[in-house]
Amino acid sequence: MNYDQIFDAAIDRLHSEGRYRVFIDILRNKGAYPNARCFAGHNGPKPITVWCSNDYLAMGQHPKVIAAMEEALHNVGAGSGGTRNIGGNTHYHVELERELADLHGKDGALLFTSGYVSNDATLSTLARILPGCVIFSDELNHASMIAGIRNSGAEKKVFRHNDVAHLEELLAETDPALPKLIAFESVYSMDGDVAPIHAICDLAEKYNALTYIDEVHAVGMYGPRGGGITDRDEAAHRIDIIEGTLGKAFGVMGGYIAADTRIIDVIRSYAPGFIFTTSLSPVLVAGVLASVRHLKESSVERDGQQAAAATLKQLFTEAGLPVMATTTHIVPLMVGDPVKAKRISDILLAEYGVYVQPINFPTVPRGTERLRFTPGPSHTEAMMVELTRALVEIWDRMELKLAA
Amino acid sequence: MNYDQIFDAAIDRLHSEGRYRVFIDILRNKGAYPNARCFAGHNGPKPITVWCSNDYLAMGQHPKVIAAMEEALHNVGAGSGGTRNIGGNTHYHVELERELADLHGKDGALLFTSGYVSNDATLSTLARILPGCVIFSDELNHASMIAGIRNSGAEKKVFRHNDVAHLEELLAETDPALPKLIAFESVYSMDGDVAPIHAICDLAEKYNALTYIDEVHAVGMYGPRGGGITDRDEAAHRIDIIEGTLGKAFGVMGGYIAADTRIIDVIRSYAPGFIFTTSLSPVLVAGVLASVRHLKESSVERDGQQAAAATLKQLFTEAGLPVMATTTHIVPLMVGDPVKAKRISDILLAEYGVYVQPINFPTVPRGTERLRFTPGPSHTEAMMVELTRALVEIWDRMELKLAA
Repeated sequence: MNYDQIFDAAIDRLHSEGRYRVFIDILRNKGAYPNARCFAGHNGPKPITVWCSNDYLAMGQHPKVIAAMEEALHNVGAGSGGTRNIGGNTHYHVELERELADLHGKDGALLFTSGYVSNDATLSTLARILPGCVIFSDELNHASMIAGIRNSGAEKKVFRHNDVAHLEELLAETDPALPKLIAFESVYSMDGDVAPIHAICDLAEKYNALTYIDEVHAVGMYGPRGGGITDRDEAAHRIDIIEGTLGKAFGVMGGYIAADTRIIDVIRSYAPGFIFTTSLSPVLVAGVLASVRHLKESSVERDGQQAAAATLKQLFTEAGLPVMATTTHIVPLMVGDPVKAKRISDILLAEYGVYVQPINFPTVPRGTERLRFTPGPSHTEAMMVELTRALVEIWDRMELKLAA
Repeated sequence: MNYDQIFDAAIDRLHSEGRYRVFIDILRNKGAYPNARCFAGHNGPKPITVWCSNDYLAMGQHPKVIAAMEEALHNVGAGSGGTRNIGGNTHYHVELERELADLHGKDGALLFTSGYVSNDATLSTLARILPGCVIFSDELNHASMIAGIRNSGAEKKVFRHNDVAHLEELLAETDPALPKLIAFESVYSMDGDVAPIHAICDLAEKYNALTYIDEVHAVGMYGPRGGGITDRDEAAHRIDIIEGTLGKAFGVMGGYIAADTRIIDVIRSYAPGFIFTTSLSPVLVAGVLASVRHLKESSVERDGQQAAAATLKQLFTEAGLPVMATTTHIVPLMVGDPVKAKRISDILLAEYGVYVQPINFPTVPRGTERLRFTPGPSHTEAMMVELTRALVEIWDRMELKLAA
């Protein structure tokens, strides 16, 4: 048994498939986002423009958020010092859970250390509490949902992406006496499309299934108060569990679910991933409180993001770049090859000061490797014109095809 | 199928066993820890003394930590804005990983959003990378290790707590050709005892097994530089993977592993729980950097904690309270009944302003319910005398037995 050999082989596989990941070492410039500094491969930090952040609305730089975090830091200190049950339940946590419950029109909410953990812990615990539970899962659900479903040990039936007819087929063939849970996302972050939420809820009612929606790429960004697509489409009351993140549009870190208090109490009491972990730092929680409250009142950031996404899609389309059709703020350019995607990204960073990460397997299926741009309210039209010009030059140099 | 009924039954089970958890809503007073404010069950916040925090050395309140976090907040903003691979790899993360690798004398380290996730992600990924891997797990390993082992799907053999002979029996009966991993903790946090690390490493060498040690209740607190029990006992070089937390003695939040770069690269590249999650906020990372660097140089906090633990154990023993024998900073009082443990805790909070959480199943085995005190360098002898007096009064009032 030679362990090193096995580990080396695992890494070699990544190199040979062109998907070995190199993390780009950056620091954002507070107050000047999307400007940042890059520390990779040259002498001293170099200025760059960030085009791939999930801090979609630049709330991680918002003065209210910074001020709230600074105040909490001086009020109570750095960490919570314990699990929620043992010393780590601060008043900030209690307040934020109330705020998030209200955001989604639910009675309760529960904080987790990340969106990943909220999906993993909630899905695995729910299905264990419901004996014989069958989980119906969209085929493009992301890794943390898949982990939670697998870790539950429950039977899983995968329906074709956003395919309501296929979902119904699977529901109809399942024993009506068994508990059922339909798990899906609102905005699919790599393709930028949106789930048919009401149609899925109709089926859930018809077949008496619980519904679980992941809104991590939508909370803060959609709906009049930033409650996500379920807020925009007035569907929140039809969903049993809404899951969201505090690390993307809200600009900080952490995850949560919102649901009725009965479900919250069960997850709170039974999920190891919630129980046995130090709670979120009160500093983060204070920042999120300010961010959620601001985005409940203000639509300037949401409108700015939608306008930026529309402009960038138009510029890419006019230049003949292979922009994928999306109905959301996500702007993906299809490349279809992991080595080329990485090469384009490298040239953009080294020669144009543009930071956009290549998206390779397992984040997207093989053969659909892409660059994924996330323009926000702080990206100016001048930046977008410059970016488009850079991409056209690279497309030309690498002899990639532009549309006529 | 009535979902509400199933959820209600799950909650009723907790009530009937006396282990339904009520989170105590508190805020610590920065700079005055262990003083805090409690928001539960009365009008306005009430002053309390915290006796159950895992911010063991009060580093969450340390001026250097607060200053570093404030600086990062103003330098780069609230959140990282992405996964480590996509926009969330800040220079702070790179620096902290270097610092933690150095702390444990390893070539590399890897940050996770929590200690729970670091255990779950690393153990489940390691065992999946090593085909046929058998995991040897101490019976008292905590929940996140158990989750990682279960989620790996690998065969698990549980050895009796700290029982090296039993571990050898299990190793000897296992096919020598199979990969093996021994997973254990250094300090077991609920009993306060320590693993026979060198003896376990001897067996690992004899049977060609990898070793994984969880040092979450030891890093920062043991060893001349705070590298944990493996630092104190000069065993770090014999361990393949050392896992630690940033949320206990280091006072902030997050988790990590330290190992050689080959293993780090494998986990970094294959663990979904590492890949698909927003990285730690740079504000937290900056705070941890300051904390780790300080505790590498300073032993004042460690010495203060050890002295406080010794004093409290002595006071409890002299008073005849059922303090459990420990060789560490943990001071548990055995109660042996979940309802009584909760009742004592409630009286302490309501009448004495003492906050110590009852520890019930599933955190400890049924029948061993206890109160767990974590005195630190900021708990004064006067506080300890007062606490001991309060406990004796309650023991008397509840007609519990004191030693002669």
